[in-house]
Amino acid sequence: MSDDRSTPGVDVRNSRWFIEFTTPHEAHMHGIKKFLVTSESKFQTMEVAQTYAYGKCLMLDGKMQSSEKDEFIYHEALVHPAMITHPDPKRVAIIGGGEGATLREVLKHKSVKEAIQIDIDEDVMKMSEKYLPEWNAGAFKDKRARMLTADGRKYLADAKDGSFDVIILDLSEPVPGGPSYLLFTKEFYEIVSDKLTPNGVVSLQAGTTANADLALHAMIMRTMKTQFPMTRSFSIEIPSFDLPWSIGVASKKLDPMKLSVGEVDKRIKARGLGKLGYYDGITHLGIFNTPKYMREALEKKGDVIEDNHPMFTAI
Amino acid sequence: MSDDRSTPGVDVRNSRWFIEFTTPHEAHMHGIKKFLVTSESKFQTMEVAQTYAYGKCLMLDGKMQSSEKDEFIYHEALVHPAMITHPDPKRVAIIGGGEGATLREVLKHKSVKEAIQIDIDEDVMKMSEKYLPEWNAGAFKDKRARMLTADGRKYLADAKDGSFDVIILDLSEPVPGGPSYLLFTKEFYEIVSDKLTPNGVVSLQAGTTANADLALHAMIMRTMKTQFPMTRSFSIEIPSFDLPWSIGVASKKLDPMKLSVGEVDKRIKARGLGKLGYYDGITHLGIFNTPKYMREALEKKGDVIEDNHPMFTAI
Amino acid sequence: MSDDRSTPGVDVRNSRWFIEFTTPHEAHMHGIKKFLVTSESKFQTMEVAQTYAYGKCLMLDGKMQSSEKDEFIYHEALVHPAMITHPDPKRVAIIGGGEGATLREVLKHKSVKEAIQIDIDEDVMKMSEKYLPEWNAGAFKDKRARMLTADGRKYLADAKDGSFDVIILDLSEPVPGGPSYLLFTKEFYEIVSDKLTPNGVVSLQAGTTANADLALHAMIMRTMKTQFPMTRSFSIEIPSFDLPWSIGVASKKLDPMKLSVGEVDKRIKARGLGKLGYYDGITHLGIFNTPKYMREALEKKGDVIEDNHPMFTAI
Amino acid sequence: MSDDRSTPGVDVRNSRWFIEFTTPHEAHMHGIKKFLVTSESKFQTMEVAQTYAYGKCLMLDGKMQSSEKDEFIYHEALVHPAMITHPDPKRVAIIGGGEGATLREVLKHKSVKEAIQIDIDEDVMKMSEKYLPEWNAGAFKDKRARMLTADGRKYLADAKDGSFDVIILDLSEPVPGGPSYLLFTKEFYEIVSDKLTPNGVVSLQAGTTANADLALHAMIMRTMKTQFPMTRSFSIEIPSFDLPWSIGVASKKLDPMKLSVGEVDKRIKARGLGKLGYYDGITHLGIFNTPKYMREALEKKGDVIEDNHPMFTAI
Repeated sequence: MSDDRSTPGVDVRNSRWFIEFTTPHEAHMHGIKKFLVTSESKFQTMEVAQTYAYGKCLMLDGKMQSSEKDEFIYHEALVHPAMITHPDPKRVAIIGGGEGATLREVLKHKSVKEAIQIDIDEDVMKMSEKYLPEWNAGAFKDKRARMLTADGRKYLADAKDGSFDVIILDLSEPVPGGPSYLLFTKEFYEIVSDKLTPNGVVSLQAGTTANADLALHAMIMRTMKTQFPMTRSFSIEIPSFDLPWSIGVASKKLDPMKLSVGEVDKRIKARGLGKLGYYDGITHLGIFNTPKYMREALEKKGDVIEDNHPMFTAI
Repeated sequence: MSDDRSTPGVDVRNSRWFIEFTTPHEAHMHGIKKFLVTSESKFQTMEVAQTYAYGKCLMLDGKMQSSEKDEFIYHEALVHPAMITHPDPKRVAIIGGGEGATLREVLKHKSVKEAIQIDIDEDVMKMSEKYLPEWNAGAFKDKRARMLTADGRKYLADAKDGSFDVIILDLSEPVPGGPSYLLFTKEFYEIVSDKLTPNGVVSLQAGTTANADLALHAMIMRTMKTQFPMTRSFSIEIPSFDLPWSIGVASKKLDPMKLSVGEVDKRIKARGLGKLGYYDGITHLGIFNTPKYMREALEKKGDVIEDNHPMFTAI
Repeated sequence: MSDDRSTPGVDVRNSRWFIEFTTPHEAHMHGIKKFLVTSESKFQTMEVAQTYAYGKCLMLDGKMQSSEKDEFIYHEALVHPAMITHPDPKRVAIIGGGEGATLREVLKHKSVKEAIQIDIDEDVMKMSEKYLPEWNAGAFKDKRARMLTADGRKYLADAKDGSFDVIILDLSEPVPGGPSYLLFTKEFYEIVSDKLTPNGVVSLQAGTTANADLALHAMIMRTMKTQFPMTRSFSIEIPSFDLPWSIGVASKKLDPMKLSVGEVDKRIKARGLGKLGYYDGITHLGIFNTPKYMREALEKKGDVIEDNHPMFTAI
Repeated sequence: MSDDRSTPGVDVRNSRWFIEFTTPHEAHMHGIKKFLVTSESKFQTMEVAQTYAYGKCLMLDGKMQSSEKDEFIYHEALVHPAMITHPDPKRVAIIGGGEGATLREVLKHKSVKEAIQIDIDEDVMKMSEKYLPEWNAGAFKDKRARMLTADGRKYLADAKDGSFDVIILDLSEPVPGGPSYLLFTKEFYEIVSDKLTPNGVVSLQAGTTANADLALHAMIMRTMKTQFPMTRSFSIEIPSFDLPWSIGVASKKLDPMKLSVGEVDKRIKARGLGKLGYYDGITHLGIFNTPKYMREALEKKGDVIEDNHPMFTAI
């Protein structure tokens, strides 16, 4: 009855909206075709909705996590630059990432022998398996994959030192009382460092790169820097997020910026990654050469995040 | 009384909002400290508002044009890659850009002898001069500047062939009945080409680069390609726009991608550009190496925009 | 996890909203616990939602029709003043009212031998039966009830003259192309008059009584007056409607204002109405003694609604 | 450029909104032509806006206080039923009411020799005098009027017992930390009672009458009842409030329900009230005969409001 293209105006007959407040004075409104899931897990509210603009979307605690139309950008960017920087990643840990798309991208690397996904919220994984099958795309059934329901920090702390080639922190935003704010601290990054091999690389979502709000991203990267000699970050455009977002990459010695366009493309091919939507050698070159204001924000001195001095998002 | 940082929730006591609908089912809500201007010119509605998130903002016809916090990104990106690609730009035409910030960036180039701004809407310029003085930052009083109130297409058509080194199209989005939709067509780009010198470069805002909505950007670039042997485009992150946005650059022969990081930085210095916030050699390298999906979208075949076949934004 | 009472602020973790635009510049936002139905019938969009404020709600074409918490006010007010004004209503026709609550109230009158509900949209009735059983509360199974899927105007036109004691017009708002705008015209009211017995009474929802927007209500009542010697109307407060709303009552001779408080209460008892929430003798006295501005608006001269001169709501 | 009547859709080119959240899950959106005042007093945020629907409006702390189109309903209802119930009101105190419209209505009564308005917030009065002159309509210059800036509770406590014929409590909603929550308590009502003459009458705004949210109104009236033998309340429809609202009237002995339609109209004439928009004898009869659910809610037992047990609005 209604049609996006023919009605030159707001659709008032299908007036369902998901409103994501990102600060006390900013919000984004997504028109909703249908809410497929509206429930609460032990840890957070969970929603799956069919949007007009972005296809199916997953929201946790009222915040957009990923959308059918652009999740490939987020998940490729979170996984491949780090994985390609490592010459031969065999064991990979994913903290968070219950919806399975990070696991999906990790398993595309033929080098991987074992990928362990540790998410605290079993309900997110179950719901994603049922309502968002495109996200894991069969990854949950891959023999190399293990999915654990556990506190990721505790899991890593108990793991053997030097046991992972790549660790990926695919976490929701740190909100007071939420499940992830203690996974952005110096103490946690020290654990991460301990569990990586000497060639190990860690990758994480690291806050917005909106130019006027880079303080949080810079604080995360400063905190990373206390534990890792090499830290890099870049910005990705994920329209459903409403704001540009960052991915941080850190390691004990390997630097993604030392890889040429040709080398990246060669490794992509050797690794058997198949057809990607976002990432290749040119993308790699482009993203690590960040805008000037972002480099300047990252050079500033300031606090680091500690267990006793945590950081939270604005709302 | 209210304070962004201390109140963990939506501010319900200062509940003024500017809601920008970008499609019938998507909108962005900006909390407003104060509306400074609310009026209508002969061509469009005009608003200047003090926002909580982005400082002072200019909106035309209900669409965000630029904000105090991030306008430098838009205006540097619109002006400098094109101006630096040209080895010695002396005469520059700006179509649109009545708020004066594009002129401000153009005049930073010492090589410029004359910069002419042609905006159809005198009221936008007058209002910007009064309420947004940071935008022109004195440019309106520069002896090299001329500000004309005229139809930009007609002005260019009447100009002498080969009379501009750089032409910058700083236009509002094409809406039916609005002042700019006939400045996105093949016929208009032919006029632009005629008026450029052999080394001439044109730069323009060219629609969103949201990955699922690249069709419009691709159509603009395809239309440019009918008139220019060299076309490039890149994406910028302007948080107040709510979506990533593109800048297109085209010329008869010069290619920005042939400039090294060092050459860009050398020209910036020689041109006397002073301290920039967004642009330098590394930024230049990063932006022209675009994400894979953007390159793929631009390779697709399809319609071009013509006077008799214009293109409009979704809402 | 969230709790209306304990959180002193907008709930940003359960941020589902139904936004009802009532004019191009007015809207109401209802927070939604869960959307139970989101679909389209042949005639209109249909939604059933569990709201935080009003319990379950039915919306058609983006407009609130009735809510669990306050539908009793609307349906009692639509049915009982008219039914009580008639001394012995036996045959009743309901045009519209597919959700069954009007039928429920009509059947409470022991005098009724036959109640026929004629709704054009079968899907509304089926969906209500499944998701809103409290609305019909068993009425669909009452032996005195008949539910027809038909064009109400055509049905009445084809009925025998003088065949109904009471006719109730329980219609959605008149929107262009919608199913009800030809049921607010002089020509239709003439049909209604023909089908009523000499003691017959008609009742209808008759637009908002918001003081500054009484023109539409007044036009409906003027149109009724062309066909009925006695017309009255009153205003009801239905919070989920967001605006005060009117009920019109008309007849060939009987006047509700001639009934005393005692007489109304006596008839309620004799009719076996049981426990009502809204209506009794005092309510009857109060509602028909309307505020001064409403009486004055109804005295104004002006157009009437005709098939060739229909009336539509603002949006 | 935009026109309410001709544009069948949300106006996206004039997209300024005032959003009033009334609970964590309910809000009303008013489209704004122009914000005339946006400021903060010592006590509250203050806004004056030109709306599309209701003309000029005053908002305090993000809550609609009164609008050009319907303020007459609120102010007539707050003043006249109480003033007419008193046979000869000479001295009147208004607590709150800084915008001057309550004073305007009080001074219409020729019997009044002195009317004292005591508002804690001088800025509200000054701003209203400048931007809302229609509200006081000259009342601030009437020789019988005195306007004081003071704490209304303290002022009354210090006044001589039995010194006022009518006291009108024209207060904003009780919000934590706001200026009015201690003026809804039993202790305050005891002071009010002391200061009234034996024939004295008090009138107050007493919360919403939305049927599902009558608990607050009932609590206010129960609290009144601890101090006054006669208490009545009624409901008014003020569209800009978005919800029906109550006025409470209490006294030591006089009962408004004992006045006939004729007696009310006679007193209105004798008092020289001139042309009113809302109130007359028929209105008086209608409003005090309230809907059944309202009477039932007021019969329930429950808490009263005390200084140590205050009551607040939901948001």
